[in-house]
Amino acid sequence: MRTITDIREMQNIALQLKREGKSIGFVPTMGYLHEGHLSLLSKARIENDVTVVSIFVNPLQFGPKEDLATYPRDFQRDSSLAEKEGNDYIFFPSAEEMYPVIPSVTVKVQDRTDVLCGKSRPGHFDGVATVLIKLFNIVQPDKVYFGLKDAQQVAVVDGLVRDFNIPVEIVPVQTAREQDGLAKSSRNVHLLPSERDQASALHHSLKMAESLIAEGENDPQKILYRMRGYIEQNTSGKIDYIEILSYPDLKQLTLLEGQIIIAMAVKFSKARLIDNAIISLKKES
Amino acid sequence: MRTITDIREMQNIALQLKREGKSIGFVPTMGYLHEGHLSLLSKARIENDVTVVSIFVNPLQFGPKEDLATYPRDFQRDSSLAEKEGNDYIFFPSAEEMYPVIPSVTVKVQDRTDVLCGKSRPGHFDGVATVLIKLFNIVQPDKVYFGLKDAQQVAVVDGLVRDFNIPVEIVPVQTAREQDGLAKSSRNVHLLPSERDQASALHHSLKMAESLIAEGENDPQKILYRMRGYIEQNTSGKIDYIEILSYPDLKQLTLLEGQIIIAMAVKFSKARLIDNAIISLKKES
Repeated sequence: MRTITDIREMQNIALQLKREGKSIGFVPTMGYLHEGHLSLLSKARIENDVTVVSIFVNPLQFGPKEDLATYPRDFQRDSSLAEKEGNDYIFFPSAEEMYPVIPSVTVKVQDRTDVLCGKSRPGHFDGVATVLIKLFNIVQPDKVYFGLKDAQQVAVVDGLVRDFNIPVEIVPVQTAREQDGLAKSSRNVHLLPSERDQASALHHSLKMAESLIAEGENDPQKILYRMRGYIEQNTSGKIDYIEILSYPDLKQLTLLEGQIIIAMAVKFSKARLIDNAIISLKKES
Repeated sequence: MRTITDIREMQNIALQLKREGKSIGFVPTMGYLHEGHLSLLSKARIENDVTVVSIFVNPLQFGPKEDLATYPRDFQRDSSLAEKEGNDYIFFPSAEEMYPVIPSVTVKVQDRTDVLCGKSRPGHFDGVATVLIKLFNIVQPDKVYFGLKDAQQVAVVDGLVRDFNIPVEIVPVQTAREQDGLAKSSRNVHLLPSERDQASALHHSLKMAESLIAEGENDPQKILYRMRGYIEQNTSGKIDYIEILSYPDLKQLTLLEGQIIIAMAVKFSKARLIDNAIISLKKES
């Protein structure tokens, strides 16, 4: 496995691989890899000739009050985990390498952002879109792997790839979970022990919602009411949002039909956790 | 030569060419080809294995009061001119093919746009940047050819390619001119016969400025004053702007030094003409 920190070097390697007819599978990350990332890499490994993992804590997607400074970092650990999984290249640029000057061109994501995490993180998806346009041009992937834990990100990237005709296939991968159902996340290390015990309630509330829907409930408000009660009774966290929307369009629904997402964010003392379930319902006929 | 109207088909051809190790030279145009375009294509022909000319009158770069509806179009003529020049592919998509839905992601060019043509064409370069990101992803060029007649466009594309790490080399090509010095342009057909006779005054005023600079004049205001007088005496056109700026940064100058651009736009009754000269000066030591 090779670690590349220079944009031009990574791009030249990628372009040469393409000239040789090799397919490139790409897993963009902010590092501090966990099993969720490794399940993406494992799938990329199977489906492509060459794999690239990027590790870049993108300052552009953090708000001024967010956790850029404290976002967990451990390159040595990441590097050995990726190598064990059979990864070929780690792209590990500095912020100065990625943003050497104030950009003369900026990107604005207009749609699918005024809901869920986007609502409380203005500019977040602009930063995500900007860094992904750059990374796609540098790494030249045939397929890019995203976890469905951040389902809104997958929806936004879907729009980005469509609007700019980026020649990459988006491969969404199911959320990896701990034994008790907690979605794996780099931010879980910031949970206090008591919070860690409570945190599986997010997943359990989603399971409860799925049961309600299976029993015939199709009023989103009633489901949301039950979920809120469950989270409030079983955790000390503060609910940032719980929403039920169409997927991937992320539009409001008055009755449940088609493909939907139930998604939430809950703030604990030093970590904000997200989780979701995507459910396909028969359309009312 | 093949004409391709489908994005996916063009992209698949380009990606296959890259897998075969072929280099692609790209000339993006809005059609109504003239010798200026053909000089770009001729250079692309020499420097690459395969050439692609796109013909697309991009609605996104026209303002609401601009000449989108009357912009001259003649695909049959363009096609035979490109074929004579030895071109391989014409990419000729419809507006519906390029913009099938309202984009969820938009691009804003923040720098190098508040001067020259950008000043009077708000949003113009946002539209240029958007269509070029799309075209670069579709055509996958190694080199892209632009005429220096629109030197601001070259400066903006330079920023775009740098900021998004687009793996393409920008090749700027000198402005092609008529016998009397008038810069070739698709819009010249809209000049009245009397205006056509006057229109070479733009080029002559630039030559005059170059002479003044060669004689030691280094005050931009004095040069601009002389140029304005010349244009006003020798044409019925209305000066939109004449500016002297650094190039490619397009910053204001109080004294001439380094690489500079003298650029102008003049409105005739049914055509707005632009022209410029880029001059390298010794820095004051």
